[in-house]
Amino acid sequence: MVGGGRDAFIGAVHRMAAQLDHQAVFVAGALSSTPEKSLDSGRILGLADDRNYPTWQAMLDTERARANGDRIDFVSIVTPNDSHFGIAHAFAEAGFNVVLDKPMVHSSEQAHALIRTVERTGVVFGVTYNYSGYPMVKQARHLVAAGDLGDIRKVVVEYNQGWLATNLETSGQKQAAWRTDPARSGLGGAVGDIGSHAEQLACYVTGLTIESVCADLTSFSPGRRLDDDANILLRFSNGARGVMIASQIEIGHENDLRIRVYGSLGSLEWRQEDPNTLMVRSLSGPETVFRRGNAGLCAEAAAATRLPAGHPEAFIEAFANVYRGVFAAIRGEASALDFPTVWDGARGVAFIEAAVRSGAGDDRWTTVEATFGAGR
Amino acid sequence: MVGGGRDAFIGAVHRMAAQLDHQAVFVAGALSSTPEKSLDSGRILGLADDRNYPTWQAMLDTERARANGDRIDFVSIVTPNDSHFGIAHAFAEAGFNVVLDKPMVHSSEQAHALIRTVERTGVVFGVTYNYSGYPMVKQARHLVAAGDLGDIRKVVVEYNQGWLATNLETSGQKQAAWRTDPARSGLGGAVGDIGSHAEQLACYVTGLTIESVCADLTSFSPGRRLDDDANILLRFSNGARGVMIASQIEIGHENDLRIRVYGSLGSLEWRQEDPNTLMVRSLSGPETVFRRGNAGLCAEAAAATRLPAGHPEAFIEAFANVYRGVFAAIRGEASALDFPTVWDGARGVAFIEAAVRSGAGDDRWTTVEATFGAGR
Amino acid sequence: MVGGGRDAFIGAVHRMAAQLDHQAVFVAGALSSTPEKSLDSGRILGLADDRNYPTWQAMLDTERARANGDRIDFVSIVTPNDSHFGIAHAFAEAGFNVVLDKPMVHSSEQAHALIRTVERTGVVFGVTYNYSGYPMVKQARHLVAAGDLGDIRKVVVEYNQGWLATNLETSGQKQAAWRTDPARSGLGGAVGDIGSHAEQLACYVTGLTIESVCADLTSFSPGRRLDDDANILLRFSNGARGVMIASQIEIGHENDLRIRVYGSLGSLEWRQEDPNTLMVRSLSGPETVFRRGNAGLCAEAAAATRLPAGHPEAFIEAFANVYRGVFAAIRGEASALDFPTVWDGARGVAFIEAAVRSGAGDDRWTTVEATFGAGR
Amino acid sequence: MVGGGRDAFIGAVHRMAAQLDHQAVFVAGALSSTPEKSLDSGRILGLADDRNYPTWQAMLDTERARANGDRIDFVSIVTPNDSHFGIAHAFAEAGFNVVLDKPMVHSSEQAHALIRTVERTGVVFGVTYNYSGYPMVKQARHLVAAGDLGDIRKVVVEYNQGWLATNLETSGQKQAAWRTDPARSGLGGAVGDIGSHAEQLACYVTGLTIESVCADLTSFSPGRRLDDDANILLRFSNGARGVMIASQIEIGHENDLRIRVYGSLGSLEWRQEDPNTLMVRSLSGPETVFRRGNAGLCAEAAAATRLPAGHPEAFIEAFANVYRGVFAAIRGEASALDFPTVWDGARGVAFIEAAVRSGAGDDRWTTVEATFGAGR
Repeated sequence: MVGGGRDAFIGAVHRMAAQLDHQAVFVAGALSSTPEKSLDSGRILGLADDRNYPTWQAMLDTERARANGDRIDFVSIVTPNDSHFGIAHAFAEAGFNVVLDKPMVHSSEQAHALIRTVERTGVVFGVTYNYSGYPMVKQARHLVAAGDLGDIRKVVVEYNQGWLATNLETSGQKQAAWRTDPARSGLGGAVGDIGSHAEQLACYVTGLTIESVCADLTSFSPGRRLDDDANILLRFSNGARGVMIASQIEIGHENDLRIRVYGSLGSLEWRQEDPNTLMVRSLSGPETVFRRGNAGLCAEAAAATRLPAGHPEAFIEAFANVYRGVFAAIRGEASALDFPTVWDGARGVAFIEAAVRSGAGDDRWTTVEATFGAGR
Repeated sequence: MVGGGRDAFIGAVHRMAAQLDHQAVFVAGALSSTPEKSLDSGRILGLADDRNYPTWQAMLDTERARANGDRIDFVSIVTPNDSHFGIAHAFAEAGFNVVLDKPMVHSSEQAHALIRTVERTGVVFGVTYNYSGYPMVKQARHLVAAGDLGDIRKVVVEYNQGWLATNLETSGQKQAAWRTDPARSGLGGAVGDIGSHAEQLACYVTGLTIESVCADLTSFSPGRRLDDDANILLRFSNGARGVMIASQIEIGHENDLRIRVYGSLGSLEWRQEDPNTLMVRSLSGPETVFRRGNAGLCAEAAAATRLPAGHPEAFIEAFANVYRGVFAAIRGEASALDFPTVWDGARGVAFIEAAVRSGAGDDRWTTVEATFGAGR
Repeated sequence: MVGGGRDAFIGAVHRMAAQLDHQAVFVAGALSSTPEKSLDSGRILGLADDRNYPTWQAMLDTERARANGDRIDFVSIVTPNDSHFGIAHAFAEAGFNVVLDKPMVHSSEQAHALIRTVERTGVVFGVTYNYSGYPMVKQARHLVAAGDLGDIRKVVVEYNQGWLATNLETSGQKQAAWRTDPARSGLGGAVGDIGSHAEQLACYVTGLTIESVCADLTSFSPGRRLDDDANILLRFSNGARGVMIASQIEIGHENDLRIRVYGSLGSLEWRQEDPNTLMVRSLSGPETVFRRGNAGLCAEAAAATRLPAGHPEAFIEAFANVYRGVFAAIRGEASALDFPTVWDGARGVAFIEAAVRSGAGDDRWTTVEATFGAGR
Repeated sequence: MVGGGRDAFIGAVHRMAAQLDHQAVFVAGALSSTPEKSLDSGRILGLADDRNYPTWQAMLDTERARANGDRIDFVSIVTPNDSHFGIAHAFAEAGFNVVLDKPMVHSSEQAHALIRTVERTGVVFGVTYNYSGYPMVKQARHLVAAGDLGDIRKVVVEYNQGWLATNLETSGQKQAAWRTDPARSGLGGAVGDIGSHAEQLACYVTGLTIESVCADLTSFSPGRRLDDDANILLRFSNGARGVMIASQIEIGHENDLRIRVYGSLGSLEWRQEDPNTLMVRSLSGPETVFRRGNAGLCAEAAAATRLPAGHPEAFIEAFANVYRGVFAAIRGEASALDFPTVWDGARGVAFIEAAVRSGAGDDRWTTVEATFGAGR
């Protein structure tokens, strides 16, 4: 692991998720950008001294030098966004499999460079768009793909948060500090941090891509340099319309990611804060409520489930499903558990660029310059 | 009553609502545009023969000729939109108080003509934006006005329907036929029929007006001439942002009008399909759930309530509250029960015009040319 | 109307409900047990002087003396429980149709006397178990009767309230005063006032009767002489088991009447505070959510509906459905709208007697001595 | 680990839960009662050959013989109920810390024998009443202990399941087979398997114990020898009343454990299928909705949380909290994370015995012969 020292929220999540199914062991890390802190964190988290690295470069060099079968099988990169490209690129170039946080990199140029590396080296490259790991999201994707909703006409996707409603970044809160800093976070604020999740969820469930956007981006908190509220009209590859809301100033919402998909024959609705349920509506007949763990779900949803129905699964299990998919790919197995890859990451970066361009200019419709589809 | 014969949905609603509190009696009507049907409907609904009129013109002439105190106190006009202006204008000019359905008229020109008449004659003129009659909507308005939410930053207002997901207008369904016909319905489809309700609700709750819109209007049903799906970015008079969704093709939604308002200190959420509840969130502390009928609600919410908490009130009672407000105004009483007026109706027409102009052109930001505020 | 003066809650409800469909007009009344108050209330509510009576006896005598067709068609009796029997019996004996509040009377002896009168005179006699007027309750009854749930195994019925959690009766609140007074309210406190509703709902939906009960009745409020909390095990005529909770001390509940019915093939769930929805579950397949106003509901549910789906109906409309059923019976019409009668009222009294007997003694299983079934 | 081979549901849960926080490693096991299967499972699950045992006796003997610091720190016993006592007793006698599934043992006699052993040897002994590991359950307990609800008057606790609505045990389903077999499951069917969870939850949250019960136990499935439906009236140590529903035949429910607690000042409600939320109501003011992960929760709830608010935690995390508490106790640390112990297990066994005695006889009130309180 690179990044994710003991105070970081997402590092602990990755360690729980990657090891939940006992298919991986945390053996090496460079857990901070400060060598001393890095070593400290590694000691506290139980790394052996000879694989507790002060820097990611040291880790890369040393692990590369280890014998085949004795080196790390993959690296999880969970640093702030600005260092994603350099680290991921170096490890992929060296032939290591990579799991990288989102948004993947700062620009489409970087994204394309990563893609070229992945294509050349053949490494497995996963991007932790973790929400697509939820079983009922996979069921939703299945229903759309099976044609149960007919032609997709409209998608409403929201990621509602309220944690940045105040000037939290001036209070010393680290998460807030780097996520509102363009140098570290990238072009997008809310649109990058959580809009990218919404984009991936919409494309994952529908199998469509977003062709153009018309965005209204605002910074409500005085002095904030990145958007904290994004409201975006969407047009999809098949002509479908959409609305995206990605906000960090909607007080009272926590991680309220939700999606509604409307087709010519039916519709569906899912919320990450109630993740074991999927509502499905059709032109005729009453609404139906699918619940995780029951018979009658698709193979992908069944494979992504660990517990009986009614014993709720949640965030960690969904996150672990991304890792399970990556592990199957590393082992060269066919698996029902797909996972987001470098191409999804690149599409996400193109989306952020288009949204920021639209919002910064005159809010006109702006094309998403993605050269890679959702189904890749 | 003009319009609202025995097969019309909304006529029966108006008759129940107007008489719920036993403050009005249904005594005269011209219930259809076809004289024969009009008389038939009046007989079935129990009108006396001498006040069961074949046409609204006959009703106007005869009622005007009756002695003071013996003529109708007000007229409810519940015809399709295209006849609103002519009938309402004639009755108002003749000095009759008017209750008129929404959207009020077809153009701002007509709206301004109505306003001039109302200002000159001094008649009471109510527009049945019935959703603002709900007690918890009045409580929401109160919380915003009292500053509990701080500065309003964002409004998300939706009116989700699915009943026009198919080509219902070709099946002989009367409601669908006139509502999808530009000649009878006006410029807007979904944006006019239900977007106007959403606009009024947003302005009523926040006390703000919408200054400009950026609209994406679509007709998904083949051959349909008016929009059946409207997704609109909003900017409010105080700089607040917003999103409006008004759709008739979202399968599975019935009359799913909802609003969320976000301020710098808190937020609120309300749904018309669960109308006795109001969710309120603040920067600190847990979410609170206000429910109709309890102590601690504002005077306007209390005055709009008839039943104890837990015995649900719903659509009819809210509709009746608009009438109660009109009746108090006719009697010249001060009342906690406000009601939407000709100025609200005019603002709604200007909103529809702007949204259609934005959507038809290049979806650019378009100014709402309303000369009257929400608080008028 | 007898009782229901201007300060009474339930009188106003009866007047709205009875007149909602414009099939009845409020023309005569003796609205209080105090002659002066009675006349005052009548004047305020617009009764003509010659039919605004000081006492119910005066009303009975005078109305009986009026010409056929000119006298009242029915009387609504909405007084406290202790006067139900005398008034209802006298009007029924005189040949007037009666609508009476629940619990019907104080004892099975009185109930049987009323039944004998109704059988002899042939008057229409409705008891306002209003919750059975909800469309989705009728749909629930239909599903059970149609066998969709298989053999009924279990019923959980609750009427949760919290309004008597404190000693409200000592504060001058009239409702609390008479409802906690055995002389006026009868044998049962919570079990009588709301347990009787729960009993009727359970029997109405399932078509079963309760054969025996094992009750734990408590008065939590110091000094209160009637139970304010009743928890009762139930056994039904077909061997089904059940649980009833009827409580007035469960803080935070308003009028939270709910029922769950479990059969060998499926189950259903309904709540009066969300009355437009009915949840249905089966052995296989996802949960389904039926909503009022949609196609596919039974004739009884459709006949009990006034508004399109999504425009919520609620308490008043359900109450009005009881009156509509009574009116159809008075006119001698066949109607899809059934209504609770004197036999249901008698069964309810027997249930209260058995529960109180069980709870007062050693909480043993006690037989409900009802001689009349649910389907009568 | 003893039991929990590769096909067992609960074994995998224990392994995920125990290792979620990287405080334990799965190093030894006797995973089945059949030696061959045991070794097979161990190989598949990655146990080293020298600690992959054919029988629990072999495991006990060999581990005991290992050097201090080199032997297992604790054993998780996840076998069917009938073997709980023998295995747990032997390991505890040998000085091993034990984590044991519920219901703990088959009789109070066995329970008391275990208690004596634990008291003599001083081993840490946890019982996986996992639902008390949920953060919002800890918050509920805190609110009651802090007096926010006033004097506790009533508890309604339910564990609704539907999975045994049919004769599943005759189909070869292993879980159903042993859980409906008195020899393996013990005296209680539903009342033992899930009623014991309900009992522990009620006592944990309120700090009270159940003094007596009046139970109606039924077997609805033909030929089934244990109850599959239990409806029980409860009386608590402080005079509070209660209702317990524990059912396996309520079609449509999955693991629908819920509790409502009513006091003289307020009430609370929690559901395991929506575990991140706690509803709290008071005599005055609106309902409040506490959510996991936010500021303002008690220390115990905060310590039991891993993820930010809005990223749902669920079953596995709650289960892991029981283990975290056990681990802290093993390390001799003071910890905010309490866990259920042998005394709670004994109280649960006494409850099952009383309920079965009450239900089998004449359903009379029966005393729970527990000598140990909830707060032990």
